[in-house]
Amino acid sequence: MAATKEEIKELAEHIYDLDAEVYVHLGSSLGRVFNRDRERCVNELTELLTTRPQGHLVRSELGLIANMARTIEDKEERAMCMTEYNRILNEVMSLPTSFASGDVIDPILAKLNSFNVANRFSNDDHLIICISWTYGSGGIDVGFKLADKLHINYYDADIFAAVLKRLDAEKDKTIRDAAGYAHVSEELQQSPASEFEAVTHMSLKDHIKYFSRYHGLNRQDAVFFNQSDLICDMAKKEDFIIMGRCADAILTNNGIPHISIYITAPIEQRIQRAIEVNSGLDRKKARHFLKKLDKKHAHYYNFYTGRSWGNANNYDLCINSASYGIDGTVDFILRMIGRDKDKKKSE
Amino acid sequence: MAATKEEIKELAEHIYDLDAEVYVHLGSSLGRVFNRDRERCVNELTELLTTRPQGHLVRSELGLIANMARTIEDKEERAMCMTEYNRILNEVMSLPTSFASGDVIDPILAKLNSFNVANRFSNDDHLIICISWTYGSGGIDVGFKLADKLHINYYDADIFAAVLKRLDAEKDKTIRDAAGYAHVSEELQQSPASEFEAVTHMSLKDHIKYFSRYHGLNRQDAVFFNQSDLICDMAKKEDFIIMGRCADAILTNNGIPHISIYITAPIEQRIQRAIEVNSGLDRKKARHFLKKLDKKHAHYYNFYTGRSWGNANNYDLCINSASYGIDGTVDFILRMIGRDKDKKKSE
Repeated sequence: MAATKEEIKELAEHIYDLDAEVYVHLGSSLGRVFNRDRERCVNELTELLTTRPQGHLVRSELGLIANMARTIEDKEERAMCMTEYNRILNEVMSLPTSFASGDVIDPILAKLNSFNVANRFSNDDHLIICISWTYGSGGIDVGFKLADKLHINYYDADIFAAVLKRLDAEKDKTIRDAAGYAHVSEELQQSPASEFEAVTHMSLKDHIKYFSRYHGLNRQDAVFFNQSDLICDMAKKEDFIIMGRCADAILTNNGIPHISIYITAPIEQRIQRAIEVNSGLDRKKARHFLKKLDKKHAHYYNFYTGRSWGNANNYDLCINSASYGIDGTVDFILRMIGRDKDKKKSE
Repeated sequence: MAATKEEIKELAEHIYDLDAEVYVHLGSSLGRVFNRDRERCVNELTELLTTRPQGHLVRSELGLIANMARTIEDKEERAMCMTEYNRILNEVMSLPTSFASGDVIDPILAKLNSFNVANRFSNDDHLIICISWTYGSGGIDVGFKLADKLHINYYDADIFAAVLKRLDAEKDKTIRDAAGYAHVSEELQQSPASEFEAVTHMSLKDHIKYFSRYHGLNRQDAVFFNQSDLICDMAKKEDFIIMGRCADAILTNNGIPHISIYITAPIEQRIQRAIEVNSGLDRKKARHFLKKLDKKHAHYYNFYTGRSWGNANNYDLCINSASYGIDGTVDFILRMIGRDKDKKKSE
């Protein structure tokens, strides 16, 4: 809406009058935002309505008037003032110079963010939840329980390591502990891990072919790029929860919608949990262990994604698990994706 | 549940048998997690079920079995396997040594977190939403629109400055720009700001008495502690949105339930918005301006709260506004507090 100077002045007059009206109803010396003569106030308001960034002060002034208007005891009078307030607010907000104009949205990010209501109902992409977490925050428990409640597949470092180990064994090579910090159990290392293929519907031969593409890279890089391919393939075929693996950055780079969540907790809670899980660890050792692990995670993530690990502006959402608990965090995420009502969707 | 060694071994046998069962249904060489002899696998599983932290590997193994079981085509067979899986999972989770035992929850934080469903319905505390935000993230617009949609009061730096200015004027002192980075408009500086009293129902004299308590402190400290008292008083009386003012830390320290949200966006989006709002700013200047402001905010917050500003583990939630947009962020928060359905609650 391109408003003329005249129209803006009229709007300023309405704001001044509303303030005066609210003041009359409250019947005391309290509550007047504009307490000087009409002309001067209207001129200043007109000026503010067309100026940025000072224009944001209009927001505070309108806020004050609304705060006051809500205290009017007579129900009808209050409703009248609030109706006028809403009308004025809408008009102010629609000004091209208004404090409310413009947005901070990144269209690409927004399109990929499955939390956005509009997105969720405008396509039938798979539900993919990427969880990054700090050790001791219970993030991995949240992911596992979430997958269980949603009846969707769950992928973590151990599962990926098992898959890649199998691929590699087929080539008579060893990439033991290839992902750097992914620790692989004897059981998983020796398991066929071929269930993974059934899921991705890709033949082992194809996997090996893909794997070969990265010859010439060092082992860790090969693992990373191989993982990236797997993740993108999976994303075309099924809903799943994926823990770490830089999956958020990989999916964003490939334009695949997903939800990215970072789970952490204050260091004291994390230390407590680390001690609980690793009997024999004392507080000092636990603290040192967590700091070292955080550094390693950050380095890995930053190296492969160019983003800063744990920085809120990389994720759709960061959750402090200490203020929800593990089950509370699961419930919270279910609520956010609108799945707290349906206990069972598919089996 | 204190399980005997015998019971745990039985559980391990059930896991092994479920894996074999799933393998039979899938009828191929794919899908066997435990592909060695029964005794050895059961013994290893029994060991894992009683050991932390290696016990978390059981989670991955169970995850793999579930991922596979969901691919069984025959509906009845699938349901049978999933029922057995759920039974086993519940039993494993209830083991005192299970990967799922223990929590990361901080009982104090959790009790104060109004996002927790249990909390929200177990008491009738006021709805208080504390928003911290980075300049250019649109956080302040989110707060204002949210207050408008919820029909609750909105308090920002300008409003607080006006109140404190008025209090101070009564004492013939000047605390102009006292809050450090709170910029006060001429209009607001000259407004009576007494609407605030109507809200807090505290006489000016009382406020001055409170204010006097902090004599001997420097001006900024006095303002901070005065704000803290106001915020705690308000929290006893009404629902509101409060922007910044370290309100999250103040309310936590005073044991008052609230929701704390941190809103930010990637630096490029913030620069874009800063330029849009402050015409004449170039990219380089905008970047410098934002970095300086972030530093100032962090310093203020850290100084008064001892917490680290913008660190995800201080807040109940961090939201990346670039992946929602301003209106999208408002909708998202409304959804989280279960207020997306009721357009009008009270006027």
